[in-house]
Amino acid sequence: MTRNVPTLADIGEEALIARIAQILGKPPANTLGIGDDAALILPGRGHLLLTTDALVEGTHFLRTWFRPEEAGGKVLASNISDAAAMGGKPSHTVVSLVLPARTPVESVERLYRGMKKMARAEGVSVIGGNVARGKAVSITVALVGTLPQGEPVLRSGARPGDRLFVTGQPGLAYLGQKLLASAGRRRELPDLWNPPAAEEPRWRKQLGRRSIWARRALRRFLLPQARVQAARDLNHYRPTSMIDVSDGLSRDLGHLARAGTRLWIRAEQLPHKPGFAQLARKLGETAESAILRGGEDYELLVTLPPASAQQLGGRAVVGGVPLTEIGEVLPGSPGVFLGSPGELTPLPESGFQHFD
Amino acid sequence: MTRNVPTLADIGEEALIARIAQILGKPPANTLGIGDDAALILPGRGHLLLTTDALVEGTHFLRTWFRPEEAGGKVLASNISDAAAMGGKPSHTVVSLVLPARTPVESVERLYRGMKKMARAEGVSVIGGNVARGKAVSITVALVGTLPQGEPVLRSGARPGDRLFVTGQPGLAYLGQKLLASAGRRRELPDLWNPPAAEEPRWRKQLGRRSIWARRALRRFLLPQARVQAARDLNHYRPTSMIDVSDGLSRDLGHLARAGTRLWIRAEQLPHKPGFAQLARKLGETAESAILRGGEDYELLVTLPPASAQQLGGRAVVGGVPLTEIGEVLPGSPGVFLGSPGELTPLPESGFQHFD
Repeated sequence: MTRNVPTLADIGEEALIARIAQILGKPPANTLGIGDDAALILPGRGHLLLTTDALVEGTHFLRTWFRPEEAGGKVLASNISDAAAMGGKPSHTVVSLVLPARTPVESVERLYRGMKKMARAEGVSVIGGNVARGKAVSITVALVGTLPQGEPVLRSGARPGDRLFVTGQPGLAYLGQKLLASAGRRRELPDLWNPPAAEEPRWRKQLGRRSIWARRALRRFLLPQARVQAARDLNHYRPTSMIDVSDGLSRDLGHLARAGTRLWIRAEQLPHKPGFAQLARKLGETAESAILRGGEDYELLVTLPPASAQQLGGRAVVGGVPLTEIGEVLPGSPGVFLGSPGELTPLPESGFQHFD
Repeated sequence: MTRNVPTLADIGEEALIARIAQILGKPPANTLGIGDDAALILPGRGHLLLTTDALVEGTHFLRTWFRPEEAGGKVLASNISDAAAMGGKPSHTVVSLVLPARTPVESVERLYRGMKKMARAEGVSVIGGNVARGKAVSITVALVGTLPQGEPVLRSGARPGDRLFVTGQPGLAYLGQKLLASAGRRRELPDLWNPPAAEEPRWRKQLGRRSIWARRALRRFLLPQARVQAARDLNHYRPTSMIDVSDGLSRDLGHLARAGTRLWIRAEQLPHKPGFAQLARKLGETAESAILRGGEDYELLVTLPPASAQQLGGRAVVGGVPLTEIGEVLPGSPGVFLGSPGELTPLPESGFQHFD
């Protein structure tokens, strides 16, 4: 490699996507292109939603940590989450698999069973795909869906005075990942794909037995559920913008801000139950840093008009999940801030970055 | 690895897909699932076509052979080809990229430029996607489209008496690949992605200067064009079944057969111009074996009713590409045969197999 050529590690994901968007240019009329959770096509007869996401061995999952069922279920959940965050109803999916030739057949079958289970739970049909050989496993899902409300919920619609909410317990998946990392060096753990593990390995079961929050954290990281019902319920409260928390709360707040919003976060209102904070401390983290930097939670970040916020109260439940008010939209230039309205300090983005 | 666990290398791609189809079960009503070039959704207002295909470093392309522009263009062409082979009109696409962190930014930009150029030529819009880190480059495209004719052209519709045709020169991409392989050991060739090659490398130019067929073969392998206009023209001749030649002619004939068709191939009618046969011989192949085993041609295999065949004649041009009659559909059990109707011999499948 020549030293003078700027690489992805130098510029980061954000700048790369901006350059790609510039190359691709303006999307055609009636189309929403790059920059939201999913792309939208308006074929003159209702919106069609289209999104894609991948799970890559070594980057998003390890075969020592994830059973094939979990990898298959998780990648579908992440796509369904993108659809839900647009106010969409996912319906059909195609899967592109890259697999080493020495992958056991049973592991591939388990992967598809996990995917089918997740699909069925969310009313999605897996209708096709492609299989290719490669050195590491990667699973890419493309999902289409519709917009039952007629209109999408974009990242960009928030107005000053709107209140900012988050579902569930962001940071939980991150603690699950830290828990798994605490179980020993990756290479010493058994490969759960070859031979295919018929059940959860003992070492993982033991981790889960530490506490109910340890179990929840592992579950959230290994096989999260997209907040589909929560998104559906939120649609009744006239959401002005929405995004799913995949890159980490601070980074996804940054995505909302870059769509043109000035966000003020009240750090003391970030949701953390005592059991969560305790688990964070045991893993050498503060609750706040786990919440802000953790990724892959697939919770929803949403802004609601003041009237809806009042109707919901500071704490509510949507789709069976707690909904917590964590801040509000201020007038002024875009950005994410902590502190008090008189003395705002920018929130650093500490979430998961690809290419770091 | 435990020796007793059957792996993908043991069962092959065909058996794997059959098992996946079994796990996924029957697709929902109004949906065409696994088993054709693309999946179809009938949302009560016209068909929606959905397909996905990937280009994986080390399996489908080498960074010493392909410039980033070519890799980007080729993966899109292969998806467009799948859509065309269903009688579909591709319209929108999302791209999922896996890239090593040390990939030069310019190479990614070049990749997208190549993709955009191909997209624009075929009336397709790239409207979104996803970027993730990984050890090797892989590019996965998901494509949606419509069916302007209203009805799809499936793999399964052929009837006894129909004539079998193929577009262009199958085997050409395979000769292109052999030509590149003749240029020396892969490791000694320069990486065209890092630093990004601003133009075609000299060694490749030299290969192309050998003959017009050498140039065509390289082009067909490195940056093929899907037979979109040919498919459109063929739609006027009431095609009964169609498939694109991606796995190799003998394997794709096998796919048609497995959809329920008995095919008789007249080997002497397989299209090969003198220049093609000459190039094949120089590369140590017979023209016939190159035609039958070569993959990634993205030509179309199509069956037409006898009346249409008569109208076209034995040789014709569709969408600017020669169309050659190479056989016919016989009554009887499915299969692909050479020889004379009285003395048929099965055609062995010698095309590209993943997982071998």
